[in-house]
Amino acid sequence: MQNASHRPDKPSPDAQPAFLFDLDGTLIDSVYQHVLAYREALGKVGIDLPSWAIHRRIGMSDELVVRAFMRDSGHRLSPKNLARLKQLHDKAFKSRLKDVRVLPGAKELLRALTELQVPYAIGTSSKRENAQGSLRMLGIGKQVPVITGEEVSNAKPNPDLFLATAERLGVEPIHCVVIGDSVWDLLAAQRARARGIGLLCGGYGEDELTRAGAYRVYRDPADLLAHLDEVGVRVEG
Amino acid sequence: MQNASHRPDKPSPDAQPAFLFDLDGTLIDSVYQHVLAYREALGKVGIDLPSWAIHRRIGMSDELVVRAFMRDSGHRLSPKNLARLKQLHDKAFKSRLKDVRVLPGAKELLRALTELQVPYAIGTSSKRENAQGSLRMLGIGKQVPVITGEEVSNAKPNPDLFLATAERLGVEPIHCVVIGDSVWDLLAAQRARARGIGLLCGGYGEDELTRAGAYRVYRDPADLLAHLDEVGVRVEG
Repeated sequence: MQNASHRPDKPSPDAQPAFLFDLDGTLIDSVYQHVLAYREALGKVGIDLPSWAIHRRIGMSDELVVRAFMRDSGHRLSPKNLARLKQLHDKAFKSRLKDVRVLPGAKELLRALTELQVPYAIGTSSKRENAQGSLRMLGIGKQVPVITGEEVSNAKPNPDLFLATAERLGVEPIHCVVIGDSVWDLLAAQRARARGIGLLCGGYGEDELTRAGAYRVYRDPADLLAHLDEVGVRVEG
Repeated sequence: MQNASHRPDKPSPDAQPAFLFDLDGTLIDSVYQHVLAYREALGKVGIDLPSWAIHRRIGMSDELVVRAFMRDSGHRLSPKNLARLKQLHDKAFKSRLKDVRVLPGAKELLRALTELQVPYAIGTSSKRENAQGSLRMLGIGKQVPVITGEEVSNAKPNPDLFLATAERLGVEPIHCVVIGDSVWDLLAAQRARARGIGLLCGGYGEDELTRAGAYRVYRDPADLLAHLDEVGVRVEG
C-alpha cells in the first residue's frame, strides 16, 4: 500500500485523502452549551431568540452569527452592545465548559487516521481562545494544523478556513474531505471544492446536511471510523 | 360562519378542527434545557450519552426514554439507579427552569384559537409537576384540558395522550390536528388518526418531521398562527 506522506505537494491518485475537520459539534459535544450560552448572552442585550434558531447559526463566523441574530430578531445592536454580546457569550460558554465532552469515537478516529497516514487538520470558526480547551480534550498536539476564525478573512460558510487548512497540509482541496456537523461546514466544503461528510452529532437532521452538500452522513466520529472505507480511505494494505 | 361549539359531540363537516398541542419544544422553549439536564443526570449514574442523541429522545414517555438511553449506551441501570436518574433529571431541569421561555407566538396562537372558537388541549409526556411551570407561563387556565404522562397507560409515541385529549374535548380524533416538534408527537398523531403538523422550534429538521407524518411544517407557533388557513381553520366569516 502506498500512503500519502504527511505533506505531499502533489498527491498521487492513490494517496490517502486528507481530512479537514470542524471542531464544535463534530469532534466535541459543545453545541448545546453554545446554544444556551448565546441564549443567555442575547437575553442580556435585550434580544429574545429561541434556542433552535440559535442552534442553526452555530458554526458560522462570529460576524455572520451576530448579523443573523439581529435579522432574525429584528433588533439592531450598537457596536458597544455587539462587543458586549461576544464577551457575554464567551463568559457564559466558559461557565458551561465543565459539561463539555469529547464526542464518541473522536479520539479513536484521529488515532486511526494517524496510523493510516491520513493527513488531517482542524478548521473552526471559533476563536483560538475558545478552541484551546477542546483541542486539549482531544489530545491534539502541535503537529496537527489548526486554523481558527480570527486567522482568516471570512470564516464559514466561506471556504477560507478549509482552503487554509488544506494549504497547511500541502494537499489540493479536491483531494480533501471536510467533516462537519452543520450546513455551514458543508457549504464551505462545496465552495472549497472538497467533498463534504456530515455528522449528526451536532443535532442537525440528515436531510439538512445532505441538501447542504454532504455526500455521506454518519452518526458521529465512531460511526465514521467504522466506515472509513466508504469515504475513500484505504484501511488495508 | 358556523363555529364548532367548544365541546361538540359530533362535529359537523364545517366545524373548526380541534388542536391538540404538545408542550415542550412546541409551545415552550425547554428542549435544550431538558437535553442538558438529562446529560447531567445520566453522567451521575455512569452513562455518557452525547447531547444530540438525548435530544432525539425528548418527548417520548419517561419509560421509553430511559429504555432508549440504556440501549444507546449499552448500560443497564438497576431499579434504584433508574429512580435516581429520574430524580436527578427533574432536579437538574428545575435548576434550568429560570432560562425557559415561551416560544414566539405561542400565547398569541392560543388567544387566536379561542377567538376563532377552535377547541384546543395539551397532551404532554411530561409529568404534571414538570408541566405546571410551562402552563403558568402560557397563561393556560383550568378551562383547557391538559393530559400528562402519568395519566395514561402509555405516553408518546403511543396515541393515548392525544386520544385522551380529543375525548376530553368531545371531538373525534379524525377532526383533530396534532401540533408537535418531535417525531414522537407525529407518530402518536398518526396512530390516533389525527393529522400532524410539525414545528421546527424543538430543533428537529423539517425532513425528520415530514417523514414521521407531518403534512405541514412551520417554524414556530407564530408561523403557524400566520398560516392557520392552510391547516383547515376558517379565519374569516
